[in-house]
Amino acid sequence: MLDLTEKPGALRAVPTGETDDAQDWRLVLDTLYARVRGDTEALAVPLSPEDQTIQSMPDASPTKWHRAHTTWFFETFLLKPHLPGYREFDPAFGYVFNSYYEAVGPRHPRPSRGLLSRPGVAKVTEYRAHVDQAMHELIRSCDREVADLVVMGLHHEQQHQELLLSDIKHAFSLSPIAPAYILDKPRRPVADPLPPATFIPLEPGLHEIGWQPDDSPFPFCFDNELPRHETLIRNVAIADRPVSNGEFMAFIEDGGYSRHDLWLSEGWATRRARGWEAPGYWYRDEDGDEWSVYTLYGPRAVDPAEPVCHVSYFEAAAYAQWAGHRLPTEMEWEHAAATLDAPAPHAPATGASSRPHPGRLRPGMAQDVWEWTMSPYSPYPGYRPPEGAIGEYNGKFMINQMVLRGSSCATPRGHERPSYRNFFPPDARWQFSGFRLATDL
Amino acid sequence: MLDLTEKPGALRAVPTGETDDAQDWRLVLDTLYARVRGDTEALAVPLSPEDQTIQSMPDASPTKWHRAHTTWFFETFLLKPHLPGYREFDPAFGYVFNSYYEAVGPRHPRPSRGLLSRPGVAKVTEYRAHVDQAMHELIRSCDREVADLVVMGLHHEQQHQELLLSDIKHAFSLSPIAPAYILDKPRRPVADPLPPATFIPLEPGLHEIGWQPDDSPFPFCFDNELPRHETLIRNVAIADRPVSNGEFMAFIEDGGYSRHDLWLSEGWATRRARGWEAPGYWYRDEDGDEWSVYTLYGPRAVDPAEPVCHVSYFEAAAYAQWAGHRLPTEMEWEHAAATLDAPAPHAPATGASSRPHPGRLRPGMAQDVWEWTMSPYSPYPGYRPPEGAIGEYNGKFMINQMVLRGSSCATPRGHERPSYRNFFPPDARWQFSGFRLATDL
Amino acid sequence: MLDLTEKPGALRAVPTGETDDAQDWRLVLDTLYARVRGDTEALAVPLSPEDQTIQSMPDASPTKWHRAHTTWFFETFLLKPHLPGYREFDPAFGYVFNSYYEAVGPRHPRPSRGLLSRPGVAKVTEYRAHVDQAMHELIRSCDREVADLVVMGLHHEQQHQELLLSDIKHAFSLSPIAPAYILDKPRRPVADPLPPATFIPLEPGLHEIGWQPDDSPFPFCFDNELPRHETLIRNVAIADRPVSNGEFMAFIEDGGYSRHDLWLSEGWATRRARGWEAPGYWYRDEDGDEWSVYTLYGPRAVDPAEPVCHVSYFEAAAYAQWAGHRLPTEMEWEHAAATLDAPAPHAPATGASSRPHPGRLRPGMAQDVWEWTMSPYSPYPGYRPPEGAIGEYNGKFMINQMVLRGSSCATPRGHERPSYRNFFPPDARWQFSGFRLATDL
Amino acid sequence: MLDLTEKPGALRAVPTGETDDAQDWRLVLDTLYARVRGDTEALAVPLSPEDQTIQSMPDASPTKWHRAHTTWFFETFLLKPHLPGYREFDPAFGYVFNSYYEAVGPRHPRPSRGLLSRPGVAKVTEYRAHVDQAMHELIRSCDREVADLVVMGLHHEQQHQELLLSDIKHAFSLSPIAPAYILDKPRRPVADPLPPATFIPLEPGLHEIGWQPDDSPFPFCFDNELPRHETLIRNVAIADRPVSNGEFMAFIEDGGYSRHDLWLSEGWATRRARGWEAPGYWYRDEDGDEWSVYTLYGPRAVDPAEPVCHVSYFEAAAYAQWAGHRLPTEMEWEHAAATLDAPAPHAPATGASSRPHPGRLRPGMAQDVWEWTMSPYSPYPGYRPPEGAIGEYNGKFMINQMVLRGSSCATPRGHERPSYRNFFPPDARWQFSGFRLATDL
Repeated sequence: MLDLTEKPGALRAVPTGETDDAQDWRLVLDTLYARVRGDTEALAVPLSPEDQTIQSMPDASPTKWHRAHTTWFFETFLLKPHLPGYREFDPAFGYVFNSYYEAVGPRHPRPSRGLLSRPGVAKVTEYRAHVDQAMHELIRSCDREVADLVVMGLHHEQQHQELLLSDIKHAFSLSPIAPAYILDKPRRPVADPLPPATFIPLEPGLHEIGWQPDDSPFPFCFDNELPRHETLIRNVAIADRPVSNGEFMAFIEDGGYSRHDLWLSEGWATRRARGWEAPGYWYRDEDGDEWSVYTLYGPRAVDPAEPVCHVSYFEAAAYAQWAGHRLPTEMEWEHAAATLDAPAPHAPATGASSRPHPGRLRPGMAQDVWEWTMSPYSPYPGYRPPEGAIGEYNGKFMINQMVLRGSSCATPRGHERPSYRNFFPPDARWQFSGFRLATDL
Repeated sequence: MLDLTEKPGALRAVPTGETDDAQDWRLVLDTLYARVRGDTEALAVPLSPEDQTIQSMPDASPTKWHRAHTTWFFETFLLKPHLPGYREFDPAFGYVFNSYYEAVGPRHPRPSRGLLSRPGVAKVTEYRAHVDQAMHELIRSCDREVADLVVMGLHHEQQHQELLLSDIKHAFSLSPIAPAYILDKPRRPVADPLPPATFIPLEPGLHEIGWQPDDSPFPFCFDNELPRHETLIRNVAIADRPVSNGEFMAFIEDGGYSRHDLWLSEGWATRRARGWEAPGYWYRDEDGDEWSVYTLYGPRAVDPAEPVCHVSYFEAAAYAQWAGHRLPTEMEWEHAAATLDAPAPHAPATGASSRPHPGRLRPGMAQDVWEWTMSPYSPYPGYRPPEGAIGEYNGKFMINQMVLRGSSCATPRGHERPSYRNFFPPDARWQFSGFRLATDL
Repeated sequence: MLDLTEKPGALRAVPTGETDDAQDWRLVLDTLYARVRGDTEALAVPLSPEDQTIQSMPDASPTKWHRAHTTWFFETFLLKPHLPGYREFDPAFGYVFNSYYEAVGPRHPRPSRGLLSRPGVAKVTEYRAHVDQAMHELIRSCDREVADLVVMGLHHEQQHQELLLSDIKHAFSLSPIAPAYILDKPRRPVADPLPPATFIPLEPGLHEIGWQPDDSPFPFCFDNELPRHETLIRNVAIADRPVSNGEFMAFIEDGGYSRHDLWLSEGWATRRARGWEAPGYWYRDEDGDEWSVYTLYGPRAVDPAEPVCHVSYFEAAAYAQWAGHRLPTEMEWEHAAATLDAPAPHAPATGASSRPHPGRLRPGMAQDVWEWTMSPYSPYPGYRPPEGAIGEYNGKFMINQMVLRGSSCATPRGHERPSYRNFFPPDARWQFSGFRLATDL
Repeated sequence: MLDLTEKPGALRAVPTGETDDAQDWRLVLDTLYARVRGDTEALAVPLSPEDQTIQSMPDASPTKWHRAHTTWFFETFLLKPHLPGYREFDPAFGYVFNSYYEAVGPRHPRPSRGLLSRPGVAKVTEYRAHVDQAMHELIRSCDREVADLVVMGLHHEQQHQELLLSDIKHAFSLSPIAPAYILDKPRRPVADPLPPATFIPLEPGLHEIGWQPDDSPFPFCFDNELPRHETLIRNVAIADRPVSNGEFMAFIEDGGYSRHDLWLSEGWATRRARGWEAPGYWYRDEDGDEWSVYTLYGPRAVDPAEPVCHVSYFEAAAYAQWAGHRLPTEMEWEHAAATLDAPAPHAPATGASSRPHPGRLRPGMAQDVWEWTMSPYSPYPGYRPPEGAIGEYNGKFMINQMVLRGSSCATPRGHERPSYRNFFPPDARWQFSGFRLATDL
């Protein structure tokens, strides 16, 4: 998925080619477009113009920036090249809302996005409406190649939906008022203690990983999921669920944050420099004897049965060392997901883009949290970046990052798939990141 | 005046004592209160909620923070101790809107004021209304001692009015859109070339400086203007006006920004580190042959007849070295203002708190720009800080700052006086700061 | 090999077990010890006490620190636990010359090594003599397990020999005097143009990599080279020599340092922040039309036929992108080295520890420069760190580093082997690092 | 005196003019030259080549740099312009050993002085001998104007003698070995408790301060001590001795380092950022109940009777606030020194340049420690910088610094005088700086 805002950069739509009724798929696409775009707007509803303006750290972006940047993507890569007579909404926006596409020209510096009081929220709403109207016009007469670009833009927007949530969570967590983003009570009560995780053996040998087309109307993957290729799976077993808050508390109580022998050297230095004593957003209550956590529902008690979340790779690796196991590789993770998961009736990609449901546990490998693997983010064998501005940066983030697999409670439903490769630097914790264990047999 | 936001901290109201009709002065004070508070609101009118939220650097504060902090001042130092039955608007605000009063408790870190999306602008407006209503109630029955505190609060708020303008100017200047704060055209056309400045000799000898009460209904000064004391004026002449943009351009063209011999050592290092080539907000137009400047009216051509503005002390001192003169001391400045200025019909202090008029030249020593003097900011002989939270920080900013005298186009009218001591670090340029020359005879 | 000074940390000696004549191998070991220790001293001969004291950056260490730290290693891990009656030279040295072994206690902060004027060079020489005398006593009666620790200490010292050279090169390069470390003239004349590199195909399929014992008297590898395991080699060809200076100049002339599309995103940011325009130590001569380079022989013209050196991973990756190829993986590199190299009569490990010969080209894969691979530094499948202080940090550097293979002109002869895994962060250039190309078939 | 190394820059020799026997004064000058230069060498005797090479912070310089820079001063400003046929020792030294004279050309960056292993100590010794020989030749035939420059060079070298001591003290204090610079035991035993300080009233009114010539053979002052001018002394009394360690301990015990109300705002921020809990070099012994201090004699117990030393201006000002008094102005200090001191038989300036005696209390105002005054460092009325390279920077340090008066145990004897203006930024503590109190009457 995304580093900072949208690292993956180059997307790759894989057309199925077999559509007997052109009008039908255009109608489907038009509906999909409307739903994904509407989801973004729904996420912004609880946020005031002031909320949508602030930027709490360079890695994060303001809500209205997310809303405008995803719109700029459609304007730049779809409307301007493909819709004759399209009138650009405001030429200044190209500078303001470009994220990192150097080929498209200079851009506003990322750490200063929080200084952009103008264009304001109302103007961004106008911008979205202007582009949406033109996009519907384009979609209704587009060919399949343009459709693939539209699909890519929708996946791109879904990535920003998750970022919007992790970014506003970070910003609100710093407020002395600690406001809730979601005003409802969380539905799930504090759960009973979890049974221990079970380690499930994988079948050793050569197995294929990487994306393969499915039967959804608009099959899609990012280019970093290709080519599909053979990989050698060793003799390993993988846990059937992520590590829980309760298990992680045992690590803390056993001195996990003060035993340098458990940590990677750079992890230990990071832990000390940032004063980490627990996962992100955790804090001791006033008596100092119970853990509380800031969530999108506001502060509440840590639930021992939930997967631990907002941990860095460094913390995940230290925990695994402490537990006498290790993290899975991304190849092991994907192979396990493909073979162990029940053939869950997944909604087709981008087919079910309703609002994310923070807090809901889903069955299978794709749970509440992104899962750190022990795999550095590298190109697949034979990977070649596509050409042009979209493809300009295909592999440009493939350094000093670790792969996460699965999806999180903040991922739009239907956006996840077993071959999806999310990636972040090992010290990042503002994403919804947890982990599961693996063990050599 | 102010360091960062409001350095002077402790204010000191000097009551006249002689008021024959208590009801009358309470009425006057009530009106004054309403006018000063209304001025602040008027300044915020052109600014959207998003505009009022952003903070462009640690020294600056968001507009809504200025609006709330000045309100907090009245709530904390007037209403809570002096109005029985007063209901605090929101207990969290004490933490959020305290600026530096350590005795009043912990406070939100200054550089993070731009992260406070909540309380929002509408809530701040409510807060102001709530406090104003209670303040009118308090004023209508207050004694003279409380009245003096109210007057102090009004002077404090006037200082924030000027800061609000310099802060939003800085923020807008960084926007790629460069919005205008004032939508009218500036009234003054580009002026004819100025005649050269005239140096007017001062009478040498022992002279008194420092504040002395006047006949305004609420005479007031800050404690740093006291005690009035004798000072020894040497044989010196002082220019009858500040250095102009046109004169400063000659300095630039003569290589003033590349001749290290003209600069203080620390000034030269600062100039290089920040890449200064001209006063703040100046930039070359696209052809590179004319100077433009960002103003509260938006970008426009530099007017050679206006006083140069947004220069640091370092630049003022380098110019003086280049010109073969020096800056005046603050004692020389005040003595000159007291003896050379026509007895201008100044409005009584805080008596004329209408909206500042950017761009208007005023006669006398108090011109368009604050004027750097060569005097470091030190206590006057015999100065003792008052007691208590208000007085806690009387002298605590008296280090590494230089005194500026006069007032600027952004100073609320009536707020200025000859004994007023504004002060900033020598590298500050986001205030409306210029300078005039003096010369030893 | 080493990150900063000695990253690999845990070493692992693999004993052969089969020694019919104990006295014989002790004699051999005693001679090996004397030769490796003498090599270090020989490297320090050209350096004055002042030269041996300075530290030019946090990653580098002073020469006398290298000399003392390697000695401390023998004192701490051999003499104190294994030589009864051993008298510690100076108890303070444990603090001063510990590098990163946290289990051994607190230690002097790395960036402050250049502040240690005392113990001085003469005292360090005494320290070495004291420890050498005791070590000879220990070796003459040691058992095989202790012998393995001695062998590890010698490999550790050889790593520091290379670091000593790269560190003093960095320090001297910053001197306005640019002194030569080697006073002789380099023997090799500027060579004829090189023929283009040839890409040699590898045999695809499952192949074993990782260390396997050889018939040297003291077979040795570091723990990160184990376990030997199968890896899947794809259809790839690998260049028969590293990229040369001449080829790299073509990249520079083609704008390689100003085309963002060739670079990893973090590489581009690094390049800009550090102002890289060419490999490390290169500079334009005064006319600006020829490249010169600072070397251990002092400044001289860049030789187009030599392998390019002192490039970061980022530069290597950008070049490969420009050339339309890629870097090999470390598995490909090792497999190629094992199968393509002539069965060169390598000296047994640590058997030929004579002074490194800067500038000499050696045949086979192990050339003048360490070679960046595209492999992040990760544990081999099934890798488990050994126990105890030596093994404490086995994997603790396995994050945010890239593997280099081969050896360099500064590597002590006999120290290299095909399974050797050197590693550095992708922005490091002060090591003798180059690269070769690979290409997918 | 000096900012970093030698701030004052421009020196000003004031010739007496009345010398009946030219040969006589040349002989005297030659002797003076030999003695001052010899003093510097004597200070370096306890220091190894390694000791003379290190630089512990950007503000400090290596011993061999001090030795070479003072020599460069004579070569640059005396020998090259005034001794026909003089052969420059090494043209590279101009770059390496220039400190801040921008007019003389580019120079080696100050923070990198500790990277200069070459020229080594032996070469610097050669350099000094080479220049000394030529200087003796020059002095024996020089005119009075050149003699004045020589005198200036000697005062400049004496300033560096004090800096050499404060710099090596700082460097040694960071060593884990904490070596002693002076191997003798300090002669003074721990003293009896001091009687309380007495405040002595000054006579109010107009008094002259600033340098005036005396009857020494080579009367001298720096330009910042001129012109002598009238100043207005208020009704004040000044303590007859500096604040002692014992008195300062009472401040610490009373929470002086944790009461923000006592501190300047910037002082409080500095104290927190640097973790100050006591004067520089103080530390609690292992039991935590007694104060020890690192001195040039090595670590020892804090002596309550000695003046407190190595305090910043911020600490001095906080103490004064706590004590209910204030620091004297530099005018008050100088007037007190001129009128209250016994007409001590001071050795003529530069006439007694024997090795400083750390730890000895001297009578009068010039005690063991430099004394912070409350006066910012500003030009005297009518001050004009001299012309040329020497005078280039006369006033260039007159910003953000506070004046210290007197002298310290590290000041070469005879170098001090009542009009001497030393100055440092308010956060500096590595100089031998203390303070005395004054009080308004």
